[in-house]
This record gives sequence, C-alpha cells and structure tokens, in this order.
Amino acid sequence: MALIVHKYGGTSMGSTERIRNVARRVAKWVRAGHQIVVVPSAMSGETNRLLGLAKELTSNPDPRELDMIASTGEQVSVGLLALALQAEGVPAVSYAGWQVPVRTDSAYTKARISSIDDTRVRADLDAGKVVVITGFQGIDELGSITTLGRGGSDTSAVAVAAALKAEECLIYTDVDGVYTTDPRVVPEARRLKVISFEEMLEMASLGSKVLQIRSVEFAGKYRVRTRVLSSLTDPLMPLEDEMISGTLITFEEDEKMETAVISGIAFSRDEAKVTVLGVPDKPGVAFKILGPIAEANIDVDVIIQNQSVEGFTDFSFTVARGELAKALDVLNTKVKPEIGAKEIVGDPAVCKVSAVGIGMRSHVGIASKMFETLFNEGINIQMISTSEIKISVVIADKYMELAVRALHKAFGLETTAA
Amino acid sequence: MALIVHKYGGTSMGSTERIRNVARRVAKWVRAGHQIVVVPSAMSGETNRLLGLAKELTSNPDPRELDMIASTGEQVSVGLLALALQAEGVPAVSYAGWQVPVRTDSAYTKARISSIDDTRVRADLDAGKVVVITGFQGIDELGSITTLGRGGSDTSAVAVAAALKAEECLIYTDVDGVYTTDPRVVPEARRLKVISFEEMLEMASLGSKVLQIRSVEFAGKYRVRTRVLSSLTDPLMPLEDEMISGTLITFEEDEKMETAVISGIAFSRDEAKVTVLGVPDKPGVAFKILGPIAEANIDVDVIIQNQSVEGFTDFSFTVARGELAKALDVLNTKVKPEIGAKEIVGDPAVCKVSAVGIGMRSHVGIASKMFETLFNEGINIQMISTSEIKISVVIADKYMELAVRALHKAFGLETTAA
Repeated sequence: MALIVHKYGGTSMGSTERIRNVARRVAKWVRAGHQIVVVPSAMSGETNRLLGLAKELTSNPDPRELDMIASTGEQVSVGLLALALQAEGVPAVSYAGWQVPVRTDSAYTKARISSIDDTRVRADLDAGKVVVITGFQGIDELGSITTLGRGGSDTSAVAVAAALKAEECLIYTDVDGVYTTDPRVVPEARRLKVISFEEMLEMASLGSKVLQIRSVEFAGKYRVRTRVLSSLTDPLMPLEDEMISGTLITFEEDEKMETAVISGIAFSRDEAKVTVLGVPDKPGVAFKILGPIAEANIDVDVIIQNQSVEGFTDFSFTVARGELAKALDVLNTKVKPEIGAKEIVGDPAVCKVSAVGIGMRSHVGIASKMFETLFNEGINIQMISTSEIKISVVIADKYMELAVRALHKAFGLETTAA
Repeated sequence: MALIVHKYGGTSMGSTERIRNVARRVAKWVRAGHQIVVVPSAMSGETNRLLGLAKELTSNPDPRELDMIASTGEQVSVGLLALALQAEGVPAVSYAGWQVPVRTDSAYTKARISSIDDTRVRADLDAGKVVVITGFQGIDELGSITTLGRGGSDTSAVAVAAALKAEECLIYTDVDGVYTTDPRVVPEARRLKVISFEEMLEMASLGSKVLQIRSVEFAGKYRVRTRVLSSLTDPLMPLEDEMISGTLITFEEDEKMETAVISGIAFSRDEAKVTVLGVPDKPGVAFKILGPIAEANIDVDVIIQNQSVEGFTDFSFTVARGELAKALDVLNTKVKPEIGAKEIVGDPAVCKVSAVGIGMRSHVGIASKMFETLFNEGINIQMISTSEIKISVVIADKYMELAVRALHKAFGLETTAA
C-alpha cells in the first residue's frame, strides 16, 4: 500500500463523461490497495470563461478579486470528481485549498505555496477515503483566496505530494510523457522513460511544455518522484502497465540505467531578437539597457554582448515575440538617448533550439557537434547560450524544423534508450 | 448616513452589462453617504448549470459535495461585482460566506444560519469600502461549505442586515413590489406600498413568490425593515424616489396608514387533493394516515376531516401536485390495509385561492363575503382552511382565474390604498 497523488488536467476533466473516466481510474488504484489524493484542474475552458467575464468589466482588475473568481473553476471540479468517485463506490471527500489549508503568500494571481497542513487529509485517508483537493489555489494570511498562476495545478499536486511524503506524484495529461523532441516535428521522436529533474527543468523552460516549470522546481526541492503519463489510455488498463508508463522525473542518477549524453532537443518559436548597435562600451551598459526593460515587466532570455571594437559594442537579447514592440519602444524612448546608442534593431523571425542532457557534464565535444551539424545544414547561428546541461542557439525562424530534425538525428535520439 | 443592505437576484446579475448597472446603482447610494453591503445571487442559470453537471454524474449526490459545487456561482458573482464597483471608482471587497464567516448548521443544501460575525465587514465599511458577500451559503462547524437552499440569497441578505443592525434591507428583484394579486391574472392588481410581515408570510407561502419564505421569517424574527423593489429601473434614478419605491414589509402597525381589510389574493395551482373515504372513526386516525405521508417526506397543506357518519368518516388533504402519485402509493400500500379505509381518491385538478389581510382580525364577515362571491360565480368550494389573517379555499382548477378576479373586485383591491 502506497500513498500516491494523482493530478488531472483540464482536458481530462473536460466533461462529465471524462470525469467519470478519471473516477474509474482512481477507483482502480484504490482497489489495488493504495491511498489516493487527487488534484484536478478546472474543466477545460472554464478559467478562460471566468477571466473573460472579469475582463468585460475592467481592463485593470484587482488581482484579489480575480482569484476569488478564477478559483471557483477548480472548486466545481473537486465536487464533481468526489461525486463521480462516490458513484463508483469509492468513499471520497473534496476540499478547496483554504480548507486543507494550503497556505500561500499574498501575491494574488501568482502566489507561492508556503505550507500545507496534512492533518485533515491524512485523517480522511486513514478513514479510507479518497481526498480530492483543488489545484491552483490556496489561502493567504488575511484569509483571502489566492491562485498560483496558470498551470498552478501541477505545482499544487507536487506540493501536496511533498507535504504528505507521497511515494509518487502522477501527473495525468494529454500526452503520454516527455519526448526527445516534439513528435510533430520529428516523427522519430521517442518517449523518455526517465529524465533527470535538471533536464526536465531545461526542457520545460525551453518550450517542451509538459509540466509547469514551478512544479518541476518544487519536485526538485522536495525530491518528489513525479511521473508524467497519459489520461487518454483505458482507465482500466492493468495497474502494472500504468505504473511504468509515461516519463519518470527522477533525482537519483542511478535510476537512469543508461545515461544518454543528450536527452532531448527543445525548441521555441516564441522568440524575438533585439540588438542595440553602436553602444559606447562603458561600465554599466548592460544595466542601463536591461534595467528599463525589466521595469517594463519584459522577460529577457538569451543575452549576448559582442567584443568591443574601437570603444563601441553591440548588445543583443531575446524576448517573447509578443513583447518585441514594447521592448523596442522602451529602448527607443528611454535607453537610446541615455546611452547614446547608434541604432536599435528588432527581429521577430528568430527561434531558439536547445540540446539538453545531464550527460553533457561528463562529455566534451557536444557543442562542436551541435555547431557542425547546423553548419552542414547551412544554418547560420545568431546567438549562443550555454549552461551545465544545455546548449541553446538562436537561429532564423525558417530553419527551426530543419535544425531540430538534424540535431535529433546527430545525437542519435531515435535509437538511444533513455 | 445609514447602513443599508442591498440584495440583487440572478436576473439582475445575469450579464456583465447588468452587473455594471448594479454597480452604478450601488455607487449612487455610496455617493449619497450610505454604507452599503451587497448580497448578490449567482448569475441567472448558473446554479442550474452546476447542479445539472452533478446530476449527470449521479442520481443520488452527496449533499456536501453539491454545496461545494453550487456555492461557486455566488462566489463568481461577488468577485465580478467587486470589480465592477472598483471600475466605478468605489472601493469594494468581496467575501464568500466562509470568510465572513456566516455560520450555519450542517444540513447541506438546506442549511440554517446560526450566526454571522460582523467584525470583518464592519471594519471594511468603516474603512469606506462596499462589502460584497455571497448569498445562499455559509460554513458549518466542520469547516465545510453549506448552502441555504433555493432562494437562500434573500435569507442571507436579511440575516446580514440583522447581524449588522442595518437600517433597511433592500431586495432588488425583477418585479417592482408585492401586488394585491398576480397582474397577469387581474390586470387591475395594484402594488402595495406597505405590507405587514404576517401578511407577507401568508402571501409568500401561498404562491405569490416574491421573496423566499425563510427570509420573511428571518425579517420577522429580527425585525429587519425589508423592502422589495425593482432592479429594472434606471440605476441613476433619484435616490429619494428609489427609497420610497417598491413594497415595504413592516413590523410596526402604524406604518400602515390606512389598513385595508384584505391586502391581497394569493393563489397556487400546484395543488392536488387526496381523500381517504370510509375510515372507521377511531382515535389516532389522522396520525395513522399522515404519519406514513410525513415519513415519505411529502408536505401536506390543507387538512380536513369530515364529521363522522355512522362511525365512518372521510379524511382529505392537499399535497403538491408532483407528489400526488407518491402520496396515493403510500396510502394504498401502507395506510389502507392498516386502518381499513374503503377507498383512496386523488384529484390533481384543484387549486387554492386565499384572501390575506391583517385587517381581518378586527373585521367580521370576511369569510361569508368570500363564500358569497364564489357562490355568485357558481364556483363550488371543496375545502376551507382559515387562520388569523387568511382564508383559503380549495376549488376546481379551471375556476382559479375567475375566482381570483372576482375576489380581487369584491374586496375592492383595485381602488384601496395600501
């Protein structure tokens, strides 16, 4: 008998028929002798509907009230799932975040979990009940409802698993695991049976959106064994098969029996490049350029400063494509006159492609192999950024699929066992 | 400056445009210097949608989970209304019942309010905020969400007004007050400017559905000055006009300047008559007949036992029309063999018409005037039931409109000032 946390996304909870399927799957785990806590998302579309109503009323909504409104989506889900479980003959009880309670700070719409009280949940589990807890939300010190931001239900599930010291946290979603790259781009992409927590962080933040990045951080911090698996399989499939399906995110190196050098190729098209040309190369330039950008709440990703030539340098960085216009505006109005740059150039037609792998640490030549592969395909590299376990390049948008396919092949990802 | 509670029904909250109108109206009251607490219902259709989802999952839902689900409708409403008020430049904060808290017993789906803590609300009012509180719900001793049953938002509003010792509780709805009878049946029906609490109780329970009956009981118990008025008027109409519009429910006899003998004619078509024929007239007969009916959770209204003839009597009562089949089944299977009755007869084609008036107490001849009026129209009276302030008759369904019109005229309701 193990204590296991299940998390189901909005698509899995999208209709009463699908909720019934979730209940059937949970019931199967209960009958196999496990204690189960379920964290469901709001029914798909519901959070958008609720926030849409708020938007009709004001363009500048009070975040506390937004959380009051948005949190109801998950509350409906837990009640419905508890009913579906009871209809399956499984004793179940639902709790909103504030009832557990899941305590958070007061950063409405993007709160962070500070603690979870497990007393009530544990008592229900010991009484033989399945406990269904709202994802995405908690309560702050003022007694107000908070939400964790989009995708926060993943984080809730991992946090609940950490608080309960659950054996495993199963994140059921509409994909069957984490792949070496997007199968829509590379048909030979292979599901990874195991991925390290660090690799998962890079894969998630680089655009292979399977899990919310904060949930992975949480899993890492509290060493929660987390598995991503499909909710679209037969809910009554044999438990032995289900327990080894999907992709396990692990913290123990030796769980990766055969460590590949590169685990996957991540990519993101939501990129734009900004270049500040002819900047007088003085101390504080980077700060003077990026300070106003940060103040405007624009997230910056890759940053490159070229070597100085005759006292002038070029400074480039990438932002989300939707923020390019805003970034250019800030640079032209606030930065250019201040630092005396020659020109500001924006390019929305770029993308980022990254090779990720914990094995990189102990292997040399990964970067050169990556650059050679791109050279052989005639792809010009515009920016390069590296970390311990990944290498990212910014290239022209139109080469993205070509680059991903070539790198996936070059690193032998279609054949390597994970 | 007065503390006033506003309550808005589901139709008034039915769209963001209507919510904006509610905010405009509340803002007008605030600008006139009043402290306002608002209790809105769920957006129209929302509670039905939510309970419909639950029904798709199980025919026998756990009432605790139903309350978890249904209570979200009002939570969305308070958040949206707070946003709309803020957009109008009025500081506002929303609370769910559990945050106030509104404490109730644990009778899920039909809970009763036991106490309301006014600390938090009063602090916000004193800080210049409008406080928006969910109707329809509270929290029990276990920390679970409870709901008060259909129409419970009226009760919430009156209870909040009582707890805060508010000057008045304004119930905004889609009618502009309480009428002498239904204007759809009698075009000459007149709005009552004032009605006594006792009359309102009789009018509400007899089918003139303007206010939930429990809210009227609450208003009576705590002597909350309650006014029913329209939310369909111009939200910016002069405050002086609005303050004397609608129908005031009063507890002070002298507020009714000119007391009419009869205040209104109420009626209900949702009636069915059951007759147990040839019952041996022994002690305990009424109990033996009505005990099993009560056990089957069937509400009984008018009860008549005829005089005994040769040791046998007939026993009649009315039930809601939808429960006739169930009542007949109980009588045939459990009661008939037990008491040795000759026959059980059901008649779904009856209705109830009542004359209601606190003036009746001090006037004689009301009953005979009522019977004479019906006799003149050739309407046969099947059952009669009287109380201090009303006389009800059960008659054939087809005569209902005729009876209501004739009585409305006979008691001079189209001309009397209330």
